Amino acid sequence: MKKTFAGITLVTLAVLPFAAHAQFAKPEDAVKYRKAAFTLMGAHMGRIGAVVKGDKAYDKAAVEQDAAIVEMMSKLPFTAFTPGSDTADSKAKPEIWKEQDKFKAAAEKMQGEVQKLSAAAKAGDLNLVKASFGAVGQSCKACHDSYRNK
Amino acid sequence: MKKTFAGITLVTLAVLPFAAHAQFAKPEDAVKYRKAAFTLMGAHMGRIGAVVKGDKAYDKAAVEQDAAIVEMMSKLPFTAFTPGSDTADSKAKPEIWKEQDKFKAAAEKMQGEVQKLSAAAKAGDLNLVKASFGAVGQSCKACHDSYRNK
Repeated sequence: MKKTFAGITLVTLAVLPFAAHAQFAKPEDAVKYRKAAFTLMGAHMGRIGAVVKGDKAYDKAAVEQDAAIVEMMSKLPFTAFTPGSDTADSKAKPEIWKEQDKFKAAAEKMQGEVQKLSAAAKAGDLNLVKASFGAVGQSCKACHDSYRNK
Repeated sequence: MKKTFAGITLVTLAVLPFAAHAQFAKPEDAVKYRKAAFTLMGAHMGRIGAVVKGDKAYDKAAVEQDAAIVEMMSKLPFTAFTPGSDTADSKAKPEIWKEQDKFKAAAEKMQGEVQKLSAAAKAGDLNLVKASFGAVGQSCKACHDSYRNK
Protein backbone atom coordinates (compact mmCIF):
# COMPACT_ATOMS: atom_id res chain seq x y z
CA MET A 1 0.00 0.00 0.00
CA LYS A 2 2.72 2.40 1.02
CA LYS A 3 4.62 1.75 -2.18
CA THR A 4 1.53 2.28 -4.33
CA PHE A 5 0.64 5.45 -2.50
CA ALA A 6 4.19 6.81 -2.89
CA GLY A 7 4.01 5.91 -6.59
CA ILE A 8 0.77 7.84 -7.07
CA THR A 9 2.17 10.85 -5.24
CA LEU A 10 5.28 10.90 -7.38
CA VAL A 11 3.26 10.66 -10.59
CA THR A 12 0.97 13.47 -9.46
CA LEU A 13 3.87 15.72 -8.59
CA ALA A 14 5.62 14.97 -11.86
CA VAL A 15 2.59 15.53 -14.05
CA LEU A 16 0.83 18.53 -12.56
CA PRO A 17 3.40 21.29 -13.08
CA PHE A 18 4.18 19.98 -16.53
CA ALA A 19 0.50 20.00 -17.51
CA ALA A 20 0.07 23.53 -16.18
CA HIS A 21 2.89 24.75 -18.38
CA ALA A 22 2.03 22.65 -21.39
CA GLN A 23 -1.62 23.67 -21.77
CA PHE A 24 -0.76 27.00 -23.36
CA ALA A 25 2.50 27.37 -25.25
CA LYS A 26 2.17 31.17 -25.43
CA PRO A 27 0.18 33.82 -23.53
CA GLU A 28 -1.69 34.58 -26.80
CA ASP A 29 -2.91 30.97 -26.89
CA ALA A 30 -4.35 31.35 -23.40
CA VAL A 31 -6.07 34.62 -24.37
CA LYS A 32 -7.54 33.07 -27.52
CA TYR A 33 -8.73 30.04 -25.55
CA ARG A 34 -10.49 31.94 -22.78
CA LYS A 35 -12.05 34.36 -25.28
CA ALA A 36 -13.43 31.39 -27.23
CA ALA A 37 -15.04 29.95 -24.11
CA PHE A 38 -16.58 33.32 -23.17
CA THR A 39 -17.80 33.82 -26.76
CA LEU A 40 -19.70 30.53 -26.72
CA MET A 41 -20.97 31.13 -23.19
CA GLY A 42 -22.27 34.55 -24.23
CA ALA A 43 -23.88 33.25 -27.42
CA HIS A 44 -25.80 30.51 -25.63
CA MET A 45 -26.70 32.78 -22.70
CA GLY A 46 -28.12 35.08 -25.37
CA ARG A 47 -30.28 32.29 -26.77
CA ILE A 48 -31.67 31.48 -23.33
CA GLY A 49 -32.10 35.22 -22.76
CA ALA A 50 -34.32 35.49 -25.84
CA VAL A 51 -36.61 32.86 -24.29
CA VAL A 52 -36.51 34.54 -20.88
CA LYS A 53 -37.48 37.89 -22.45
CA GLY A 54 -40.26 36.22 -24.44
CA ASP A 55 -38.68 36.97 -27.84
CA LYS A 56 -38.45 33.27 -28.59
CA ALA A 57 -40.88 30.47 -27.72
CA TYR A 58 -39.79 28.15 -24.90
CA ASP A 59 -38.40 24.86 -26.21
CA LYS A 60 -37.25 22.66 -23.33
CA ALA A 61 -34.72 20.66 -25.37
CA ALA A 62 -33.15 23.78 -26.90
CA VAL A 63 -32.81 25.60 -23.57
CA GLU A 64 -31.44 22.45 -21.94
CA GLN A 65 -28.79 22.17 -24.66
CA ASP A 66 -27.93 25.87 -24.44
CA ALA A 67 -27.58 25.58 -20.66
CA ALA A 68 -25.39 22.47 -20.98
CA ILE A 69 -23.06 24.38 -23.31
CA VAL A 70 -22.99 27.36 -20.92
CA GLU A 71 -22.22 24.96 -18.06
CA MET A 72 -19.32 23.31 -19.88
CA MET A 73 -17.96 26.67 -21.02
CA SER A 74 -18.19 28.11 -17.49
CA LYS A 75 -15.53 25.65 -16.36
CA LEU A 76 -12.96 26.42 -19.05
CA PRO A 77 -11.72 30.02 -19.04
CA PHE A 78 -10.18 30.22 -15.61
CA THR A 79 -7.25 27.89 -16.29
CA ALA A 80 -6.34 30.31 -19.08
CA PHE A 81 -5.67 33.43 -17.01
CA THR A 82 -2.03 32.36 -16.95
CA PRO A 83 0.74 34.64 -15.65
CA GLY A 84 1.73 37.11 -18.37
CA SER A 85 -1.50 36.72 -20.32
CA ASP A 86 -2.69 40.28 -19.63
CA THR A 87 -1.75 41.10 -23.21
CA ALA A 88 -2.75 43.90 -25.56
CA ASP A 89 -5.40 41.67 -27.12
CA SER A 90 -7.15 41.11 -23.80
CA LYS A 91 -9.55 43.17 -21.70
CA ALA A 92 -8.41 41.39 -18.54
CA LYS A 93 -7.51 43.83 -15.76
CA PRO A 94 -4.26 43.35 -13.80
CA GLU A 95 -6.43 42.98 -10.67
CA ILE A 96 -7.10 39.38 -11.79
CA TRP A 97 -3.51 38.47 -10.96
CA LYS A 98 -3.34 40.73 -7.88
CA GLU A 99 -6.54 39.39 -6.28
CA GLN A 100 -6.38 35.72 -7.20
CA ASP A 101 -8.57 34.61 -4.29
CA LYS A 102 -11.31 37.17 -5.00
CA PHE A 103 -11.19 36.42 -8.72
CA LYS A 104 -11.45 32.68 -8.04
CA ALA A 105 -14.40 33.26 -5.70
CA ALA A 106 -16.17 35.34 -8.36
CA ALA A 107 -15.59 32.60 -10.93
CA GLU A 108 -16.91 29.95 -8.58
CA LYS A 109 -19.97 32.06 -7.77
CA MET A 110 -20.76 32.21 -11.50
CA GLN A 111 -20.14 28.48 -11.95
CA GLY A 112 -22.55 27.73 -9.09
CA GLU A 113 -25.28 29.93 -10.58
CA VAL A 114 -24.75 28.30 -13.98
CA GLN A 115 -25.22 24.86 -12.43
CA LYS A 116 -28.56 26.01 -11.02
CA LEU A 117 -29.57 27.30 -14.46
CA SER A 118 -28.61 24.01 -16.03
CA ALA A 119 -30.60 22.08 -13.43
CA ALA A 120 -33.65 24.31 -14.01
CA ALA A 121 -33.34 23.78 -17.76
CA LYS A 122 -33.13 20.01 -17.31
CA ALA A 123 -36.19 20.09 -15.05
CA GLY A 124 -38.06 22.08 -17.71
CA ASP A 125 -39.13 24.68 -15.17
CA LEU A 126 -39.35 27.94 -17.12
CA ASN A 127 -39.93 30.11 -14.05
CA LEU A 128 -36.84 28.64 -12.41
CA VAL A 129 -34.93 29.10 -15.69
CA LYS A 130 -35.88 32.78 -15.64
CA ALA A 131 -34.84 33.26 -12.00
CA SER A 132 -31.54 31.41 -12.36
CA PHE A 133 -30.78 33.11 -15.68
CA GLY A 134 -30.99 36.44 -13.86
CA ALA A 135 -28.63 35.20 -11.15
CA VAL A 136 -26.12 34.00 -13.76
CA GLY A 137 -26.30 37.37 -15.49
CA GLN A 138 -25.60 39.18 -12.22
CA SER A 139 -22.60 36.95 -11.52
CA CYS A 140 -21.25 37.66 -15.04
CA LYS A 141 -21.72 41.39 -14.55
CA ALA A 142 -20.09 41.41 -11.10
CA CYS A 143 -16.93 39.83 -12.50
CA HIS A 144 -16.91 42.03 -15.63
CA ASP A 145 -17.29 45.17 -13.50
CA SER A 146 -14.30 44.24 -11.36
CA TYR A 147 -12.01 42.44 -13.76
CA ARG A 148 -12.72 43.41 -17.37
CA ASN A 149 -11.74 46.65 -19.08
CA LYS A 150 -14.43 48.34 -21.19
CA MET B 1 -55.42 14.89 -29.61
CA LYS B 2 -55.88 16.39 -33.06
CA LYS B 3 -56.03 19.90 -31.67
CA THR B 4 -52.89 19.39 -29.59
CA PHE B 5 -51.05 17.94 -32.55
CA ALA B 6 -52.07 20.86 -34.77
CA GLY B 7 -50.92 23.24 -32.03
CA ILE B 8 -47.52 21.62 -31.84
CA THR B 9 -47.12 21.68 -35.61
CA LEU B 10 -47.97 25.36 -35.77
CA VAL B 11 -45.53 26.22 -33.03
CA THR B 12 -42.78 24.22 -34.73
CA LEU B 13 -43.38 25.92 -38.05
CA ALA B 14 -43.49 29.34 -36.45
CA VAL B 15 -40.36 28.89 -34.38
CA LEU B 16 -37.91 27.13 -36.66
CA PRO B 17 -37.29 29.77 -39.34
CA PHE B 18 -37.21 32.48 -36.70
CA ALA B 19 -34.62 30.61 -34.68
CA ALA B 20 -32.46 30.07 -37.75
CA HIS B 21 -32.40 33.80 -38.43
CA ALA B 22 -32.16 34.89 -34.83
CA GLN B 23 -29.15 32.83 -33.78
CA PHE B 24 -26.69 35.22 -35.43
CA ALA B 25 -27.62 38.86 -35.80
CA LYS B 26 -24.71 39.54 -38.18
CA PRO B 27 -22.42 37.38 -40.36
CA GLU B 28 -19.48 38.47 -38.15
CA ASP B 29 -21.24 36.94 -35.13
CA ALA B 30 -21.51 33.62 -36.96
CA VAL B 31 -17.81 33.76 -37.91
CA LYS B 32 -16.77 34.55 -34.33
CA TYR B 33 -18.98 31.75 -32.99
CA ARG B 34 -17.69 29.02 -35.28
CA LYS B 35 -14.07 30.14 -34.79
CA ALA B 36 -14.55 29.90 -31.02
CA ALA B 37 -15.86 26.34 -31.31
CA PHE B 38 -12.95 25.33 -33.58
CA THR B 39 -10.44 27.02 -31.25
CA LEU B 40 -11.62 24.99 -28.26
CA MET B 41 -11.87 21.81 -30.34
CA GLY B 42 -8.29 22.32 -31.51
CA ALA B 43 -6.98 23.11 -28.04
CA HIS B 44 -8.46 19.97 -26.49
CA MET B 45 -7.50 17.80 -29.47
CA GLY B 46 -3.98 19.13 -28.86
CA ARG B 47 -4.10 18.01 -25.23
CA ILE B 48 -5.20 14.50 -26.23
CA GLY B 49 -2.55 14.59 -28.96
CA ALA B 50 0.18 15.20 -26.38
CA VAL B 51 -0.91 11.99 -24.61
CA VAL B 52 -1.14 10.07 -27.89
CA LYS B 53 2.39 11.17 -28.83
CA GLY B 54 3.68 10.25 -25.37
CA ASP B 55 4.60 13.82 -24.43
CA LYS B 56 2.15 13.75 -21.53
CA ALA B 57 1.30 10.88 -19.17
CA TYR B 58 -2.08 9.22 -19.74
CA ASP B 59 -4.69 10.40 -17.25
CA LYS B 60 -8.07 8.77 -17.96
CA ALA B 61 -10.16 11.53 -16.36
CA ALA B 62 -8.32 14.32 -18.18
CA VAL B 63 -8.54 12.65 -21.59
CA GLU B 64 -12.22 11.85 -20.99
CA GLN B 65 -12.90 15.49 -20.19
CA ASP B 66 -10.91 16.72 -23.20
CA ALA B 67 -12.82 14.31 -25.45
CA ALA B 68 -16.18 15.41 -24.00
CA ILE B 69 -15.30 19.03 -24.80
CA VAL B 70 -14.20 18.06 -28.33
CA GLU B 71 -17.47 16.15 -28.75
CA MET B 72 -19.64 19.08 -27.66
CA MET B 73 -17.64 21.51 -29.80
CA SER B 74 -17.90 19.22 -32.86
CA LYS B 75 -21.65 19.81 -32.92
CA LEU B 76 -21.56 23.60 -32.82
CA PRO B 77 -19.79 25.21 -35.78
CA PHE B 78 -21.93 23.99 -38.64
CA THR B 79 -25.03 26.01 -37.80
CA ALA B 80 -22.77 29.06 -38.09
CA PHE B 81 -21.81 28.75 -41.76
CA THR B 82 -24.71 31.04 -42.51
CA PRO B 83 -25.27 32.56 -45.96
CA GLY B 84 -23.08 35.63 -46.37
CA SER B 85 -20.65 34.63 -43.65
CA ASP B 86 -17.72 34.05 -46.02
CA THR B 87 -16.28 37.33 -44.77
CA ALA B 88 -12.80 38.82 -44.82
CA ASP B 89 -12.18 37.57 -41.30
CA SER B 90 -12.84 33.95 -42.25
CA LYS B 91 -10.80 31.28 -44.00
CA ALA B 92 -13.98 29.54 -45.18
CA LYS B 93 -13.90 28.78 -48.90
CA PRO B 94 -16.93 29.62 -51.08
CA GLU B 95 -17.17 25.87 -51.86
CA ILE B 96 -18.84 25.43 -48.47
CA TRP B 97 -21.94 27.18 -49.78
CA LYS B 98 -21.70 25.66 -53.27
CA GLU B 99 -21.34 22.05 -52.07
CA GLN B 100 -23.63 22.03 -49.05
CA ASP B 101 -24.26 18.27 -49.21
CA LYS B 102 -20.57 17.39 -49.43
CA PHE B 103 -19.70 19.86 -46.69
CA LYS B 104 -22.42 18.43 -44.45
CA ALA B 105 -21.18 14.88 -45.12
CA ALA B 106 -17.62 15.89 -44.20
CA ALA B 107 -18.87 17.50 -40.97
CA GLU B 108 -20.88 14.40 -40.08
CA LYS B 109 -17.91 12.14 -40.80
CA MET B 110 -15.86 14.18 -38.31
CA GLN B 111 -18.66 14.14 -35.73
CA GLY B 112 -18.89 10.36 -36.02
CA GLU B 113 -15.14 9.92 -35.51
CA VAL B 114 -15.25 12.28 -32.53
CA GLN B 115 -17.99 10.16 -30.94
CA LYS B 116 -15.75 7.11 -31.26
CA LEU B 117 -12.88 9.02 -29.65
CA SER B 118 -15.13 10.10 -26.81
CA ALA B 119 -16.34 6.52 -26.28
CA ALA B 120 -12.73 5.26 -26.24
CA ALA B 121 -11.79 7.94 -23.70
CA LYS B 122 -14.75 6.98 -21.49
CA ALA B 123 -13.76 3.31 -21.71
CA GLY B 124 -10.21 4.26 -20.70
CA ASP B 125 -8.74 2.29 -23.61
CA LEU B 126 -5.56 4.15 -24.56
CA ASN B 127 -4.92 2.07 -27.69
CA LEU B 128 -8.42 2.82 -28.91
CA VAL B 129 -7.94 6.49 -27.98
CA LYS B 130 -4.82 6.57 -30.15
CA ALA B 131 -6.55 4.91 -33.11
CA SER B 132 -9.66 7.06 -32.95
CA PHE B 133 -7.61 10.22 -32.37
CA GLY B 134 -5.87 9.53 -35.69
CA ALA B 135 -9.22 9.07 -37.43
CA VAL B 136 -10.52 12.36 -36.02
CA GLY B 137 -7.36 14.11 -37.19
CA GLN B 138 -7.82 12.73 -40.69
CA SER B 139 -11.44 13.89 -40.80
CA CYS B 140 -10.36 17.38 -39.67
CA LYS B 141 -7.66 17.49 -42.33
CA ALA B 142 -9.97 16.28 -45.10
CA CYS B 143 -12.39 19.12 -44.42
CA HIS B 144 -9.64 21.73 -44.02
CA ASP B 145 -8.03 20.65 -47.31
CA SER B 146 -11.31 21.10 -49.18
CA TYR B 147 -12.99 23.96 -47.38
CA ARG B 148 -10.45 26.14 -45.57
CA ASN B 149 -8.08 28.66 -47.11
CA LYS B 150 -4.48 28.59 -45.91
